[in-house]
Amino acid sequence: MGADIARKRFPQVDFLICGDENRIRSLLGSMKELESVCTVRHADQVISDEDKISHALRKGQNSSMWLAIDAVRNGEAAGVVSAGNTGALMAMSKMALKTLPGIDRPAIASILPTLRGESVMLDLGANVQCDAQNLVQFAIMGEVFARTVHGLVNPTIGLLNVGAENLKGHEAVKMASAILRETDLPIRFHGFIEGNDIAAGTVDVVVTDGFTGNVSIKTAEGISGLFSELLSSAFKSSFTAKLGYLLARNALKKVRTRIDPRRYNGAMFLGLNGIAVKSHGGTDAFGFANAIGVAVDMAVHGFNDKIIEELKHLGEDPLSVRQAAVS
Amino acid sequence: MGADIARKRFPQVDFLICGDENRIRSLLGSMKELESVCTVRHADQVISDEDKISHALRKGQNSSMWLAIDAVRNGEAAGVVSAGNTGALMAMSKMALKTLPGIDRPAIASILPTLRGESVMLDLGANVQCDAQNLVQFAIMGEVFARTVHGLVNPTIGLLNVGAENLKGHEAVKMASAILRETDLPIRFHGFIEGNDIAAGTVDVVVTDGFTGNVSIKTAEGISGLFSELLSSAFKSSFTAKLGYLLARNALKKVRTRIDPRRYNGAMFLGLNGIAVKSHGGTDAFGFANAIGVAVDMAVHGFNDKIIEELKHLGEDPLSVRQAAVS
Repeated sequence: MGADIARKRFPQVDFLICGDENRIRSLLGSMKELESVCTVRHADQVISDEDKISHALRKGQNSSMWLAIDAVRNGEAAGVVSAGNTGALMAMSKMALKTLPGIDRPAIASILPTLRGESVMLDLGANVQCDAQNLVQFAIMGEVFARTVHGLVNPTIGLLNVGAENLKGHEAVKMASAILRETDLPIRFHGFIEGNDIAAGTVDVVVTDGFTGNVSIKTAEGISGLFSELLSSAFKSSFTAKLGYLLARNALKKVRTRIDPRRYNGAMFLGLNGIAVKSHGGTDAFGFANAIGVAVDMAVHGFNDKIIEELKHLGEDPLSVRQAAVS
Repeated sequence: MGADIARKRFPQVDFLICGDENRIRSLLGSMKELESVCTVRHADQVISDEDKISHALRKGQNSSMWLAIDAVRNGEAAGVVSAGNTGALMAMSKMALKTLPGIDRPAIASILPTLRGESVMLDLGANVQCDAQNLVQFAIMGEVFARTVHGLVNPTIGLLNVGAENLKGHEAVKMASAILRETDLPIRFHGFIEGNDIAAGTVDVVVTDGFTGNVSIKTAEGISGLFSELLSSAFKSSFTAKLGYLLARNALKKVRTRIDPRRYNGAMFLGLNGIAVKSHGGTDAFGFANAIGVAVDMAVHGFNDKIIEELKHLGEDPLSVRQAAVS
């Protein structure tokens, strides 16, 4: 159980587990130490991955997902972590927690392994269409995240595009780039980057719309799968290859650990007035514990307060003023 | 020189080489057999990668790129292959060759390695914004390419989106999906696919707009680079790992060959009334020969005639009729 791993890692954390009480109690039965830091809240309903968002919002009030989010809303819990339906989790979180002042739309962010270390990328699918303002807000949220939670000094921000030159791309990215260049935000805007810059680690924060971000991150998943599959059959293809694998195994294990998707599990919903983290549905206890870790990190570092502070520095609605100035 | 490799592979092909005559002659001097099937056409100007498209179009008439495209326009050459500025090559090709009847905008397509074999993907960057009509036309061109040039029987078409469900995505993909579903085109429309389906080889033809396609393909390039780099340092990290590499080397070489970007070199500009293929600027002779091979394949299989035929079957402007019907 992910919570049991997280309990050892974060002894300061108590857990509120929402769901079918009988099942949860029977699981906790064998983990006495975890049980001692857990409160169980029974829910009759479960939102399934197939549920439409509208349906989830209607039937949702008795669901485990709603109870968990509601506990964040009323201050009982510092954050919610769920491996359930992403769309429903986002819709319910928006409805219950609302967005932060100055943020029009929350974005889904994740940490990714790169050649240089790790980067943050957003939006990974919350908003299929974004205007320049949305992209600028994502840039600010990503920057604050990289700085406060990820601990980077002066992180660099890149805007994903089809070329590095100023003339490239559609209106929204050109306008967002102009705003980020012209405005006196205390952030280091690198400019446009291309798809290959993501894994290269050219910037610390990759900003894009939810359509492109989702396709890009899933393309990366697919290519990783292709590589793993091809390597695994190559190492099985002959006796000498098998022997070679055995000798190189420790070194290869380090590569696998470095890019283990479970290590990067836990997509953050940035821009909400509360902490919500989405775990991959197919992860294991180790992966889920990491998603809990993401929520703990955000709470410990007071991420949302820092976003509000950052946006306050900008004064009254400065982005739209600035947008008018460059349009 | 790529042409010399291509000459051996395609003995039926003659070459018209446009560029600095002195340099070309001195290169050909050491390749007598190639020289015997080459015509050299001198050009004073070169379009550089940094040239703006507008500038290229103005100064272009004396450039090697223009001379090569013009030879296709006037029927002297069956196709043009260039490793130059992509934007300029597309703009000049559009200007000189025009688009095929029934095609509003050409798209850049490429063949990609997948778990199941190979797929075709388009648009990879010609059109940063696409409407439903463009996407439907890309689907038809991709299908004809997969069938006639790639030799697939009944290839499947997938529309790249952020989820497989009908409700997902922005208006253009939803509308394009409705058109492809409802229309009686003789194509096998699989429906929406996600980014991870590209490398999985879920469909034979991946259709998307040029912004998403470009970011996706470059994301894949970046991840491949990350994998190669991590594996290469892993194999160098200890004596046993080095030994392991030596033993597994032959098997690993097969993996490298399978996904060698040079094998997939040669992006096709589909939808032009003439054949134009873009080679990667950084490839070698082997890669460039493959780009020539792509142009030869398209010419041999009469790709453009088949597109025109396919679109004729649809009758008078059926896509917009159909679009009205589903909107």
